[in-house]
Amino acid sequence: MSTWAEWFAEQRAGREDAGLQRALRPRAADEDVIDLANNDYLGLSCHPEVRRAAADAALRWGAGAGASRLVTGTTTLHAELERELAEFTDHEAALVFSTGYHANLSAVTALADKQSLIVSDAHVHASLIDAARLSRAAIEVVPHNDVAAVRAALAGAGGRRALVLTESVFSVLGDAAPLPDLAEVCADHDALLVVDEAHGLGVVGEGGRGSVHANGMAGDPHVVMTATLSKSLGAMGGAVLGSAALVDHLVNRARPFIFDTGLAPAPTAAALTALSCLRRQPARPSQIHQRGGELADRLGVPRSAGAVLSVPMPSPQVAIAAQAAALAEGVRVGCFRPPSVPDGISRLRITTHVGLDDDRWEHAVDVLTHVVKDHRGSP
Amino acid sequence: MSTWAEWFAEQRAGREDAGLQRALRPRAADEDVIDLANNDYLGLSCHPEVRRAAADAALRWGAGAGASRLVTGTTTLHAELERELAEFTDHEAALVFSTGYHANLSAVTALADKQSLIVSDAHVHASLIDAARLSRAAIEVVPHNDVAAVRAALAGAGGRRALVLTESVFSVLGDAAPLPDLAEVCADHDALLVVDEAHGLGVVGEGGRGSVHANGMAGDPHVVMTATLSKSLGAMGGAVLGSAALVDHLVNRARPFIFDTGLAPAPTAAALTALSCLRRQPARPSQIHQRGGELADRLGVPRSAGAVLSVPMPSPQVAIAAQAAALAEGVRVGCFRPPSVPDGISRLRITTHVGLDDDRWEHAVDVLTHVVKDHRGSP
Repeated sequence: MSTWAEWFAEQRAGREDAGLQRALRPRAADEDVIDLANNDYLGLSCHPEVRRAAADAALRWGAGAGASRLVTGTTTLHAELERELAEFTDHEAALVFSTGYHANLSAVTALADKQSLIVSDAHVHASLIDAARLSRAAIEVVPHNDVAAVRAALAGAGGRRALVLTESVFSVLGDAAPLPDLAEVCADHDALLVVDEAHGLGVVGEGGRGSVHANGMAGDPHVVMTATLSKSLGAMGGAVLGSAALVDHLVNRARPFIFDTGLAPAPTAAALTALSCLRRQPARPSQIHQRGGELADRLGVPRSAGAVLSVPMPSPQVAIAAQAAALAEGVRVGCFRPPSVPDGISRLRITTHVGLDDDRWEHAVDVLTHVVKDHRGSP
Repeated sequence: MSTWAEWFAEQRAGREDAGLQRALRPRAADEDVIDLANNDYLGLSCHPEVRRAAADAALRWGAGAGASRLVTGTTTLHAELERELAEFTDHEAALVFSTGYHANLSAVTALADKQSLIVSDAHVHASLIDAARLSRAAIEVVPHNDVAAVRAALAGAGGRRALVLTESVFSVLGDAAPLPDLAEVCADHDALLVVDEAHGLGVVGEGGRGSVHANGMAGDPHVVMTATLSKSLGAMGGAVLGSAALVDHLVNRARPFIFDTGLAPAPTAAALTALSCLRRQPARPSQIHQRGGELADRLGVPRSAGAVLSVPMPSPQVAIAAQAAALAEGVRVGCFRPPSVPDGISRLRITTHVGLDDDRWEHAVDVLTHVVKDHRGSP
């Protein structure tokens, strides 16, 4: 037996002992489940116009982009999506990536290097953590949402170019970052604030334009917005939004952009059409907060700034049992377990959907209320 | 003016001075160009069955996977594609990622850590270089295709788990790695050989099963294969192939897998159908070598082990001029310039396509022959 086979077996045994072993569970197209584990908050992934746009793009353009965006992988669809995203969020320019992870990796690694300082909120997404590591910058992790700590870290930057990394709505706890205060601190120190709007775009602010827009920070030369096209927009891919100079820099210097095949035509067209649907229904995002607020109250947990409700559980094993109990009643929810939680506490992860009709949503709320009560004690 | 705006301007001026400034050039769906810049070697991206499969998947499943593969982003389509890829290449298991970059990043970062040694060929793709950096392992870069240097590096591994990184067909020079020798060295030292088959799958070996298969190394416990679904298979995404224990490990530990939305249904179905087309036309990949060999002879450059021909040019500026001259005659080719070349030499990048009929291919060969002659001197 090789060292490697032994190592795989040891690693797996360790995960099993800790209740952390995971496996993929393929779902069928025709399953009859209310899926509150996915991030299709607005129901746009399955919107007839969005499906049709994706299908038409595959028929018209082919299945793939064929090459890197810089070679021949940029179609007029990509350019149109970039224009629309920039206009919707009130930025000068946008750049589309094949995943949100690539967008974060690109923004951070093209802006920071060994001579830079990165100040990172303790709760940022794995893609931002990996991006910071990959940049080889000096990294200072500051306590969650602690503006004074960010200020102190930047005061020590010396002459280094500095980035501050945060999310508008944090993916695990669902709380919001103090964006105006962070932007002010960044402007004071000529640092760039990178705001991941993965859970903000399509959810927060006027018509779902996101938190950067809602706070009047779009176009601020010290703010860079990143986003995903795979959550509220129901497709796949990511984006970076900011100045034209920033986008030009990323096109030329971001390795995860340059050395990657472009986003396929189908998800590109789907995101573009989803954005158009969102623009025609500007009140839709606010329904997320209404439904989500009511559910939070029923479950006795804090309201979320976005669409993800986190419900703490006593252990990973109990979280898994509660998830299974909900699924047995036709409601799928997610489960946060280490290493996906910043504080080691396992949680149910419930996303608020406004694509469901009232009856199905109410049914889901009833199921989750009693499942949570049964597994956590009274809420 | 902020430090950042000044820095963007300085960086751009430096690129312009060096002839390295790039811009995106969106292409239209109906352009009349012979595109030898893309990597759709087999013409499968635009194969009617493949387009149709992508369209049908978008209509049936929606535009996006909706969530991480580990949450609810794994459909039966993903599972079927993984079974088929594993069977085709004769591996025990496969795991599909949203990009080839994610596949390489995942394989390396989930297998290596601070206590590991990574021995990397000097010419590996940017995604493997970034993966090695992100893993925080000790990295030893060895001269290109130098088996003795790999052996020497592994001899110094001590008790560390060690990975060796290579490509089956190198992306820039188009040459092949000495896989059997590397595999033997790895087995001797209980190291894992990670072989990126981005340019091997669908191109090399019996029916396009790739170089790992062609060398009888599929199933070797010391070999891990990575691949892309966006080149010969015409879609989007990536894959890692190896043992079931390896795939189980990646599912549980690879951050770029866990923290990323699953590959969208359309490209997943497209890759699956492209693979089926490839199986029904097992002689198709060998036509790449026939056409590519003839073109290489005409241009006076070494034949490629894969589908990419590299034609050295005197400078980045001349390479750009030659590329423009070919495009003016209706033939698009790519251009390798720093930082995309291991040796700093700019090159035309011409991909051999077997999706084109003989007349169009011959026309392209004629155009390229005189364009290269005009720009480089006689071949």
